[in-house]
Amino acid sequence: MDFQFPDRVQLGLYPTPLTPATRLSEALDGPEIYIKRDDLTGVTLTGNKIRKIEFLLAEARQHNAEVIITCGGAQSNHARTTAIAARQLGMRTHLVLRNNGGKSLDGNLFLDRMVGAEITFVSAEEYERVDDRMQEIAAQYEKEGIKAYVIPEGGSNALGAMGYAFAMKELADQIKKSKQTFDAIVLAVGSGGTQAGLLIGKMLFQVPINIIGINICDDAAYFQNRIRSILQEARQRFSLPAQLLSESIHIVDGYVGKGYGLSRLEEIKTIKQVAELEGLILDPVYTGKAMYGLKDLIAKGYFQKDQKIIFLHTGGIFGLFPKRNLFF
Amino acid sequence: MDFQFPDRVQLGLYPTPLTPATRLSEALDGPEIYIKRDDLTGVTLTGNKIRKIEFLLAEARQHNAEVIITCGGAQSNHARTTAIAARQLGMRTHLVLRNNGGKSLDGNLFLDRMVGAEITFVSAEEYERVDDRMQEIAAQYEKEGIKAYVIPEGGSNALGAMGYAFAMKELADQIKKSKQTFDAIVLAVGSGGTQAGLLIGKMLFQVPINIIGINICDDAAYFQNRIRSILQEARQRFSLPAQLLSESIHIVDGYVGKGYGLSRLEEIKTIKQVAELEGLILDPVYTGKAMYGLKDLIAKGYFQKDQKIIFLHTGGIFGLFPKRNLFF
Repeated sequence: MDFQFPDRVQLGLYPTPLTPATRLSEALDGPEIYIKRDDLTGVTLTGNKIRKIEFLLAEARQHNAEVIITCGGAQSNHARTTAIAARQLGMRTHLVLRNNGGKSLDGNLFLDRMVGAEITFVSAEEYERVDDRMQEIAAQYEKEGIKAYVIPEGGSNALGAMGYAFAMKELADQIKKSKQTFDAIVLAVGSGGTQAGLLIGKMLFQVPINIIGINICDDAAYFQNRIRSILQEARQRFSLPAQLLSESIHIVDGYVGKGYGLSRLEEIKTIKQVAELEGLILDPVYTGKAMYGLKDLIAKGYFQKDQKIIFLHTGGIFGLFPKRNLFF
Repeated sequence: MDFQFPDRVQLGLYPTPLTPATRLSEALDGPEIYIKRDDLTGVTLTGNKIRKIEFLLAEARQHNAEVIITCGGAQSNHARTTAIAARQLGMRTHLVLRNNGGKSLDGNLFLDRMVGAEITFVSAEEYERVDDRMQEIAAQYEKEGIKAYVIPEGGSNALGAMGYAFAMKELADQIKKSKQTFDAIVLAVGSGGTQAGLLIGKMLFQVPINIIGINICDDAAYFQNRIRSILQEARQRFSLPAQLLSESIHIVDGYVGKGYGLSRLEEIKTIKQVAELEGLILDPVYTGKAMYGLKDLIAKGYFQKDQKIIFLHTGGIFGLFPKRNLFF
């Protein structure tokens, strides 16, 4: 389909490699696993978030924004990526971060501070109205004559999702070039924008592949609603065909474990196993839970041995550092 | 010149970008500074070391090595890169690390452990004979029927230096494409292999550019000797023209500061300044000292305002984490 993507400012490195995980596939004795290396979008910009931010910051520039306001947990990958990307374009950032006692100056939060992001910590309770809070902060800047641009949590709105519609085009080209057939993409779902974007791309570029999200917080119903609402917003904003809304939204629940950002021993062991087998570093909040989920699904016979699947590595390495004591 | 590079196994992402640092150049009010982003060779493989290791591990594979033995400080970027790259090729690593009381499981050392590297800690005194120690460990493996391959500190031998001869070709192509003239490459020097490789590439591909090393430990005489000995080894091994040995080896001394791995306030401030201006993260051990040196040289009129220089970002971000308390 001929689709005109909105403006984008490229800051990441593309295409990210699609590489077979031979030793891991053998160890799990299931389908052939390939890794889509979106952890290789950059070093400080590592991970899936930069793909969304490239579209969002392009719009911020069109609006002549001087300061970008966004939010997340204290170890938010999205907040870190935004803070660094904004600086690369000469803009400032104001982050509203949820303080769960995890203010320790490590990992992502350390990098936020390194690039001089302004940080407002709020309690988990206050964070429930974070969208209002960001609007208030924006109004404050505007009052001082400073143009502000607000990005919602995870960059997960229709414009941000365009990053993964675009990624799906990249992946479709790689699949075509590989002359192989892939049955499914498996990914961690934390705010819904990546999966929404992949679904848009799947429809736009007619990629015959299953998109399977493994939720790392909340539950399947929550993300089905959330993703559907991003798809609706995208349909309207980008005049997409109604067919988009009939795509099924596939979420496999059951791998939240102890809850958002909390690790179980089997997740930690999975991260160690993949590191030792493949030299590939996952993260405890997203990809570690999703990979544990994938392992468990394989053990339960969810996939056939003659299938080929793609695990989307959405990055997150800096979130590993504050959790390093769990590993040894 | 027509030169046949030895075998190489590509693990990093190339070409790394060559990008103008507009706001930094303006702030320093000196020459136009471009950054050669060798921090973007990967995420866990970030930095200059992977370029050397690609040639060294290719040879290790030819030798059917199962275990790679190498050495460095506890926060060695070279050791971390080797440990991860080896795992990506299905090989194990045994690291001999200098223990200066910095065994804290953070930064590079944490990643070494994540991929299951075997680690032997030695005292600074024992480390003086680290080459012998590595040979002893190799002999031990061989006795058990396990083929071992030893890489010297920093990967800085003739074969490792090929990584930067190769990089010089990449850079020469970028310079040509940019239709601009660059006067100098400025880089941090810690073991000499990168500068030796650049000098080989400069001769092979006739790149008319000054290569200026800023030593971050020891002194100019030490590195001139060391680099000359790598060039001699390379000349012999790769049958390079004698002209190579008449290249002048340019080392600017004076920026070691408090010593290897120890930071001065002005270095920390420089790292913060670059982060805030450019969204670019330097490291305290190598690039932070070299950038402070560059700043100081500019202030002293070492460069003309109409010149263009390239600062080689050799990576090292993981070394920043154990030092994070110095920044705030």
